[in-house]
Amino acid sequence: MSARPEDLQLPDAELGEAVTRPFPNSRKTYVSGSRPDLRVPMREIRQGPTPTSDGDLPNPPIYVYDTSGPYTDPAATIDLKAGLPGVRDGWIADRADTATLDGLSSAYGRERAADEALAHLRFGPVRTPRRAVSGANVTQMHYARRGEITPEMEFVALRESQRLDELREQYTAAGLLAQHPGHAFGAAIPERITPEFVRDEVARGRAIIPANVNHPELEPCIIGRNFRVKINGNLGNSALGSSIAEEVEKMVWGIRWGADTIMDLSTGKNIHETREWILRNSPVPIGTVPIYQALEKVGGIAEELTWEIMRDTLVEQAEQGVDYFTIHAGVLLRYVPLTADRVTGIVSRGGSILAKWCLAHHQENFLYTHFDEICEIAKAYDVSFSLGDGLRPGSLADANDAAQFAELETLGELTGKAWEHDVQVMIEGPGHVPMQLIKENMDKELADCLEAPFYTLGPLTTDIAPGYDHITSAIGAAQIGWYGTAMLCYVTPKEHLGLPDREDVREGIIAYRVAAHAADLAKGFPGAQVRDNALSKARFEFRWEDQFNLGLDPERAREYHDATLPKETAKVAHFCSMCGPKFCSMKITQEVRDLARAEVEQGLAQQAEAFRAGGAEIYKKV
Amino acid sequence: MSARPEDLQLPDAELGEAVTRPFPNSRKTYVSGSRPDLRVPMREIRQGPTPTSDGDLPNPPIYVYDTSGPYTDPAATIDLKAGLPGVRDGWIADRADTATLDGLSSAYGRERAADEALAHLRFGPVRTPRRAVSGANVTQMHYARRGEITPEMEFVALRESQRLDELREQYTAAGLLAQHPGHAFGAAIPERITPEFVRDEVARGRAIIPANVNHPELEPCIIGRNFRVKINGNLGNSALGSSIAEEVEKMVWGIRWGADTIMDLSTGKNIHETREWILRNSPVPIGTVPIYQALEKVGGIAEELTWEIMRDTLVEQAEQGVDYFTIHAGVLLRYVPLTADRVTGIVSRGGSILAKWCLAHHQENFLYTHFDEICEIAKAYDVSFSLGDGLRPGSLADANDAAQFAELETLGELTGKAWEHDVQVMIEGPGHVPMQLIKENMDKELADCLEAPFYTLGPLTTDIAPGYDHITSAIGAAQIGWYGTAMLCYVTPKEHLGLPDREDVREGIIAYRVAAHAADLAKGFPGAQVRDNALSKARFEFRWEDQFNLGLDPERAREYHDATLPKETAKVAHFCSMCGPKFCSMKITQEVRDLARAEVEQGLAQQAEAFRAGGAEIYKKV
Repeated sequence: MSARPEDLQLPDAELGEAVTRPFPNSRKTYVSGSRPDLRVPMREIRQGPTPTSDGDLPNPPIYVYDTSGPYTDPAATIDLKAGLPGVRDGWIADRADTATLDGLSSAYGRERAADEALAHLRFGPVRTPRRAVSGANVTQMHYARRGEITPEMEFVALRESQRLDELREQYTAAGLLAQHPGHAFGAAIPERITPEFVRDEVARGRAIIPANVNHPELEPCIIGRNFRVKINGNLGNSALGSSIAEEVEKMVWGIRWGADTIMDLSTGKNIHETREWILRNSPVPIGTVPIYQALEKVGGIAEELTWEIMRDTLVEQAEQGVDYFTIHAGVLLRYVPLTADRVTGIVSRGGSILAKWCLAHHQENFLYTHFDEICEIAKAYDVSFSLGDGLRPGSLADANDAAQFAELETLGELTGKAWEHDVQVMIEGPGHVPMQLIKENMDKELADCLEAPFYTLGPLTTDIAPGYDHITSAIGAAQIGWYGTAMLCYVTPKEHLGLPDREDVREGIIAYRVAAHAADLAKGFPGAQVRDNALSKARFEFRWEDQFNLGLDPERAREYHDATLPKETAKVAHFCSMCGPKFCSMKITQEVRDLARAEVEQGLAQQAEAFRAGGAEIYKKV
Repeated sequence: MSARPEDLQLPDAELGEAVTRPFPNSRKTYVSGSRPDLRVPMREIRQGPTPTSDGDLPNPPIYVYDTSGPYTDPAATIDLKAGLPGVRDGWIADRADTATLDGLSSAYGRERAADEALAHLRFGPVRTPRRAVSGANVTQMHYARRGEITPEMEFVALRESQRLDELREQYTAAGLLAQHPGHAFGAAIPERITPEFVRDEVARGRAIIPANVNHPELEPCIIGRNFRVKINGNLGNSALGSSIAEEVEKMVWGIRWGADTIMDLSTGKNIHETREWILRNSPVPIGTVPIYQALEKVGGIAEELTWEIMRDTLVEQAEQGVDYFTIHAGVLLRYVPLTADRVTGIVSRGGSILAKWCLAHHQENFLYTHFDEICEIAKAYDVSFSLGDGLRPGSLADANDAAQFAELETLGELTGKAWEHDVQVMIEGPGHVPMQLIKENMDKELADCLEAPFYTLGPLTTDIAPGYDHITSAIGAAQIGWYGTAMLCYVTPKEHLGLPDREDVREGIIAYRVAAHAADLAKGFPGAQVRDNALSKARFEFRWEDQFNLGLDPERAREYHDATLPKETAKVAHFCSMCGPKFCSMKITQEVRDLARAEVEQGLAQQAEAFRAGGAEIYKKV
């Protein structure tokens, strides 16, 4: 996918086979909840049997969290031009606290809808937006605080659990449930994720379920430190290129590899129409940075931004169904001079736009002064906030400085304000931070921001590896995820250098799935080690196909294996290309195991017979 | 480089241009020590000037550690068939404690040398080995304990320092010396790395300088927790393929990207000849696992190994110039049954070979029982030990278990024994370990093994990402490096799947350079942040070429940038393809900085004039 500046090509009804083909030996399954329209997707990975001298022993299928939506379900009919089915339609309607509007509330939305010149770009079916009825608050936090367990809450509880309770016995019997105790740094992860636990966490603000009433296509996910660590993938066009078709395909590609949410960071042409295509086809929460579009509306001149333009943009996007907004309300006028002596100044686009506005007008940030009104909009649609870190460091040198931490304190103040409206909040974090300063970020966020979920970009742990920043940042992301960060924003190998293509997105997503999973293991999330155990067991037993299929990227694993040993027979061979048949430690150790078991038996027999001293101490257990 | 089983192609005199071309805008320089033949290589990266309204401000060149040897020196004549010059010849000769032998001491070495059928494979110039004269001990540890500072010690002191003392003022003036305080977990890193400090660390056993008297081509490096974290790259043929030419090229390729040492893990054909070619052309320490070759000598049947065969192999390799041996002397008979109930048994090749031998003979590991004799060999040539972790975990499930830690205690006991002979020792570590269990490995190693340097493989922090284990393990490597590990053994994307090709080696090396550098920053190694600061400053000032050139992989950075904006003009543009010209936060922030500075000045003026209250608190400093 190279950049094609003027290419406004629309998505075809069908996506390429590479983007949607089911994972090998996997099956999309759904777990049913308490109502017929509550079906929680999972991916079942089937395994081959373990061959033994007494015949084959079956290995149980492994269930894994599946963000890919209907795209990997062969039973689903995918038509990008029609969009996904509204799985939440019934849930939202049943609450009877929203109404379908007569038309769009935003002036800009109406203008775009009326523009004949845009007809060829528009997503086909016209949706009429929903909004809370007068006086109603439709946020998940509001329901939670009222004591209500919504279908969204039940859905995420089932999703986080991944059937662990039902499968506990089966996994235990197969030797797959063993897990090292976690070290959770004060997180409160329960043994079982129940709907009531979800409700309580959402009510306390320790977790959010981004779920706009105008995004009924959503399969909800929960973001909070007592749940699985989530990852976000960014996409979006820029002035330099990319078509709507490309962006929709990137979204589907991103969730295929495991993005839990997608941010549409478009700053180029036709942002409104691009977003509609993405939302109507996205089963995951979509986040945006509305100030980018607001800036486009004033020709890119930050000084000309107004609250009125911003408000119209927020309403426009809320009515399209955006699930969370990055709001840079913490970039205060008095903080801007704190960045003057930085090595890399302000590197957040939103932060720099607002800093410029504040200085040019010598007025306080209008997102800060109008924050209550923003909350009013958010609670009418249930848009969650991602309070933006506009003053995050853009280099190690600027990490944890006065500007960054001053803004963080203000984000804490705004969290309290948002919660007065029952608006869901997460807090954005850095950026570029050397390892020894990472934990301070987490600790300060928890303290200043009242345990609202932290959502960090990396952090990158060194600045010297352009081209490899998915790795410099995965190192930091794994650590901060372990310390308590709820969602990790991915970084691709192209970071700082260029626009990511499809392979970059894949590399970035997998690097972050690795970081998030490493963090889940370290926190001790229940059942997190099952997949590792299953894959390791398959590896040890030379079940090559199972080893590939249980991995995060079965296609890559198989391709790498086949680069050295392409024959199908090599996939049942009891050795690999690393060492060849003679030197295989796995093979030798199987022999050692047999010998050692005989040793143990012999040792016990000797003990019993002759009470030979000292013989028993060498054996661990029988 | 695909596998070509029967290909015994020899290296040409010249390497490909891709393998040896100098890095862009870089110059190989040498710092002279106290004797004319002591020349310490560094790479100087020149920078362009910072354009300002008052004209160009020059930026100082940055000096970086350079492992690539003469291969990136345009002034050097490279002839693989002749080998590298013996830069240590004079140092070794001057000590007058070694003698050149009449011939090879090992039976196998003599046999290979006499075999006419091998003539076409042999490295050309015949070297006669050196050995300590009767009664002499020629280890760096021995000299250090005697209070002698050797040229090797002086060399590594200069090398670790990277001219920081001389450049301190220049770097400070350019704003490049700022660095966050480290958190070193009890390491004792001084402000200045002096030869005396090096001597003291080597004498205490907290650092080693692997430097066989038969490897005079070596540019010494030091491995210890109070020095820069080092990385090792593995190469080696297997029964399934690779030629001598390929292995030599992989060595040069590996050190080009930053491998501090190379392990030759060949298990295929002509191991002896392959090793000779590598050693004669390697400026970095070469490590081996001699048991692999010993096993080849007995047709791959572990039970047939004997101490005599092993001893002859150790002498054979010591006389070729191998700088460190992995010795699996801690795999004791009584530990083997502890692995019987593991998920992945024994995954170390050496470990599994010795376990099998122990069980088959029901005797103690011959490397353990003959350890004093091994020390006698080591001290006659100065071969360092890398005490192998034959029982390391091969999966998260097996991490930190009884078998692993029992062996570690034995490695501690052997460390004490080796030190009685003044033999240099490092300790190998795991493997597969979830994050929350990593620190226990480091702490236990320091306690059990008397602070001997730790040398770990990763560790991999999850098992579920075959194809991405350079990332799963870089996450663990950065952490354990921070905690105190002295050298990190790289893992490539092909780990568990196949033989790494050239691109895999590059990916693995860079991932590990990232991890090692992240650890140096976190430990607070003096001057570690200079390169990060310089690159960040270049990034902020849109000095694209400098940004590429200061990175670990300038070629990749440029290639990624050019994938979106190929024109040369884009490399002086004040924006990039990520956001396009209008949305560039870097550009906006430059404007903000100007405004903010004006703000500060205005604020101060106001203060001075009217003592206006509250106006000053918003300004950090002037």
